[in-house]
Amino acid sequence: MSLTCLSTVPRYGVQEIIISGPEGGNPFADEHITGTFTHDGEILTAPGFYDGEGRYVVRFMPSFEGEYTYRITASFLGEAITGSFTVTLAQAGVHGPVKVADTFHFAYADGTPYRPVGTTCYVWHLQTPKMFEKTLETLKASPFNKIRFCVFPKHYDYNHNEPFAYPFAAAEKAPGQDYAWDFSRFDPVYFRHLECAIQRLGEMGVEADIIMLHPYDRWGYSRMTLSQMQHYFRYLVSRIGAYRNVWWSLANEYDLMPEMVTEDWEALAGTIQQHDPYHRLTSIHNCFGFYDHTRPWVTHCCLQRQDLYRTTELVDTWRKEFGKPVIVDELGYEGNIQHGWGNLTGEELTRRFWEATIRGGYAGHGETYFSDKEILWWSHGDVLHGTSPARLQFLRDFLDALPGPLEPWKSNWDDRCACVPGGEEEAPPVIVYYYSFMRPSFRDFTLPEGTAYRAEVLDTWEMTRTDCGIKEGSFRLWLTGRQYAAVCLTRVK
Amino acid sequence: MSLTCLSTVPRYGVQEIIISGPEGGNPFADEHITGTFTHDGEILTAPGFYDGEGRYVVRFMPSFEGEYTYRITASFLGEAITGSFTVTLAQAGVHGPVKVADTFHFAYADGTPYRPVGTTCYVWHLQTPKMFEKTLETLKASPFNKIRFCVFPKHYDYNHNEPFAYPFAAAEKAPGQDYAWDFSRFDPVYFRHLECAIQRLGEMGVEADIIMLHPYDRWGYSRMTLSQMQHYFRYLVSRIGAYRNVWWSLANEYDLMPEMVTEDWEALAGTIQQHDPYHRLTSIHNCFGFYDHTRPWVTHCCLQRQDLYRTTELVDTWRKEFGKPVIVDELGYEGNIQHGWGNLTGEELTRRFWEATIRGGYAGHGETYFSDKEILWWSHGDVLHGTSPARLQFLRDFLDALPGPLEPWKSNWDDRCACVPGGEEEAPPVIVYYYSFMRPSFRDFTLPEGTAYRAEVLDTWEMTRTDCGIKEGSFRLWLTGRQYAAVCLTRVK
Repeated sequence: MSLTCLSTVPRYGVQEIIISGPEGGNPFADEHITGTFTHDGEILTAPGFYDGEGRYVVRFMPSFEGEYTYRITASFLGEAITGSFTVTLAQAGVHGPVKVADTFHFAYADGTPYRPVGTTCYVWHLQTPKMFEKTLETLKASPFNKIRFCVFPKHYDYNHNEPFAYPFAAAEKAPGQDYAWDFSRFDPVYFRHLECAIQRLGEMGVEADIIMLHPYDRWGYSRMTLSQMQHYFRYLVSRIGAYRNVWWSLANEYDLMPEMVTEDWEALAGTIQQHDPYHRLTSIHNCFGFYDHTRPWVTHCCLQRQDLYRTTELVDTWRKEFGKPVIVDELGYEGNIQHGWGNLTGEELTRRFWEATIRGGYAGHGETYFSDKEILWWSHGDVLHGTSPARLQFLRDFLDALPGPLEPWKSNWDDRCACVPGGEEEAPPVIVYYYSFMRPSFRDFTLPEGTAYRAEVLDTWEMTRTDCGIKEGSFRLWLTGRQYAAVCLTRVK
Repeated sequence: MSLTCLSTVPRYGVQEIIISGPEGGNPFADEHITGTFTHDGEILTAPGFYDGEGRYVVRFMPSFEGEYTYRITASFLGEAITGSFTVTLAQAGVHGPVKVADTFHFAYADGTPYRPVGTTCYVWHLQTPKMFEKTLETLKASPFNKIRFCVFPKHYDYNHNEPFAYPFAAAEKAPGQDYAWDFSRFDPVYFRHLECAIQRLGEMGVEADIIMLHPYDRWGYSRMTLSQMQHYFRYLVSRIGAYRNVWWSLANEYDLMPEMVTEDWEALAGTIQQHDPYHRLTSIHNCFGFYDHTRPWVTHCCLQRQDLYRTTELVDTWRKEFGKPVIVDELGYEGNIQHGWGNLTGEELTRRFWEATIRGGYAGHGETYFSDKEILWWSHGDVLHGTSPARLQFLRDFLDALPGPLEPWKSNWDDRCACVPGGEEEAPPVIVYYYSFMRPSFRDFTLPEGTAYRAEVLDTWEMTRTDCGIKEGSFRLWLTGRQYAAVCLTRVK
């Protein structure tokens, strides 16, 4: 028996303990391995997994600095293996995993606010190595701090290629069968590549919103039995759950999965809860009707809009309905393909982000410009062509400069208002108005007596911020007279 | 006693019989005059009115050519006066009054289709004579075949001037009172000017959608008692009801009228029905909630949108709800004033027209560009500044070239479809798709077996129509890839 274990790990990094063990039979199904990690501040038991070629692995993310001891037990070990390691300072820029904070918002484990400005590239990691690198390079220069993508390959318009490998071991095909799998055995090569993608994203500060199941499938992965799915969920959670930037999305368009009923989803959520000691953020994404996001295992609402005309305009309604953070991760894509969900202007996509923001919620980007080479950011990654990302960077910079998250406030029927809440009875430190597709030449404002605010007029499309000076009492602000204007009032007295 | 009567009147013109009578007392309230007009095809009794200075007038619109006899009775006449006149051919371009046709649409009395493309200029007729003429000139060069305007002057933002005259006789003011009226006496000068406006519009083929009451008022006209309002309604209907282009709109934003309840509106509708032998088109326009448009006296729905984001997208819903033609006469205005209803882009206003059209309904234009001179088309008329009117002309030309009205048909979730219905089991003669704010690069179509259609791609903003040739079976059309595209398929086999 051999064992490898890092002697030092940075806080929120990954300790990886590797033990040799049996290769015979089906180790994926027949053997199990578990690690318990102990520190003054936490005791955490993490499931391990079989990585092929006699390698058994337990991964662990430490949440504290200092000494940890571990204790590994396994079906093939006579007695537990113990040891210790040191957890050092977190690496520069690492703030830990993202959690729900203030009911409707998010923060990293160390308290740093996290404001999701996400994108979707369903199978970017399954493209060529060159495009894989290009996508990471594009992301690095982008506003995106979260990316939704699938574990499994995708079969859909513009998505007809085969992946470099498959998640499951091949089985013997029956006559006329295109694919056959042994769902009890995984291909570690496939998952190591997925981990590489997650790690690379983590290094860039990008959250990996992992879509565990999806219906766009010619391989048969959407038609596994529940117990096969649970076996796969256990394996996936054990393998990648220690990476601090992992979020669980049970499915994309769960309601299009051909044979699944609510009980199945609940069982799968149970599998995650049982095997994920970190309680990573967990959601389930719809096509038509929303899942019941009040279920206790749902940490935040990951929503596709249900109406062609009203998308993020309903975020405040959904906040009230579910009492959790709302991310409208599919509000349509900037692009020009044939499908109605994939041919928005950059202006409209940006507007939908601001409509979510001003209602105390969040949105997700995606891009689907027609390409006869079938390379669209939405699935493949590569490079961005659209006009919205620059504006989403402007939005993200605006949000990052605020002293706290935006909450819906005293809106008028024809502007939406949010504020960074102050204490009770106190005028808020920041008030924001957003004018959407309207084009007011001016608006009139009245501030609470005894307060003064610096007024700024924003053009969220032209990405300008114009200082209009200190205001008290009632005053008129001349705006841009163009669409997508906003006003930001920052308290100075 | 003197009597004047035209010896010949064109069909759908106005016969005006004037009789001298008493000036003493209050002829507006104390006297009455009525005419009965008889022809092989119709017998019609029309109320007359007092026009001041001893002039009593009965107006009549003949619907048939040939000989008419008349019989005038009045409270001040010992016996009826009779006579006859000849009705000649309608003047060139005159098709008679507009009526509801095919449940959801309109046609002139002679069967010519009427497709409303209306605008709103609330008090254009109460501006200077120079601007009055300028407005008519602008209308003449515009796409608009209907205009909504008020009988009474308007008090609101950008509307603070006094009219050249007042509809009622002045009464003695109490101390501190700005205005005082004898609501039992009218000022014929005021109404003659209104009639001039209606006639001038009629000569241009523009329908006059007359707003009988409205809440934007500093003169007290919105606070008359019900019986005062009924007295005024009787007078107005008797005076202008004979003009073929008159439509009755009981009120603009009826639900903002300070002291009115449903029973009052029903009583006023009854007054119209009792005194209007022509059964002119009659509607009532909301601010918030719709009136009950299923009421039998409501001929068509004249609606203001209720939702900031969905306006004419709901036209098919409202058609089903009310079973009558739907005109969304206030869907927001093109402009840039401070109010959210008055600062749409020309693109958005035009899109809302097409959304109404593709759902088998109609829409109304309005324009509110900021003017420190307080001259805005929406109230004052004068000239148009916007980008939508040219596109509405394109829409009107498109509609006018169709062989019948558009009815909603087999829509997809991401395009709206309408057709000019054919017979049962028959493929329709024309099929139209509209893509709204979406930007499909192409769409795929399948035609019924055995049919062939000429395919055209429309850019409703750039106002282009591109012939793509004859198509059969399944085919792909490459579209503009820009917003506001449409497809028109015209059956050739």
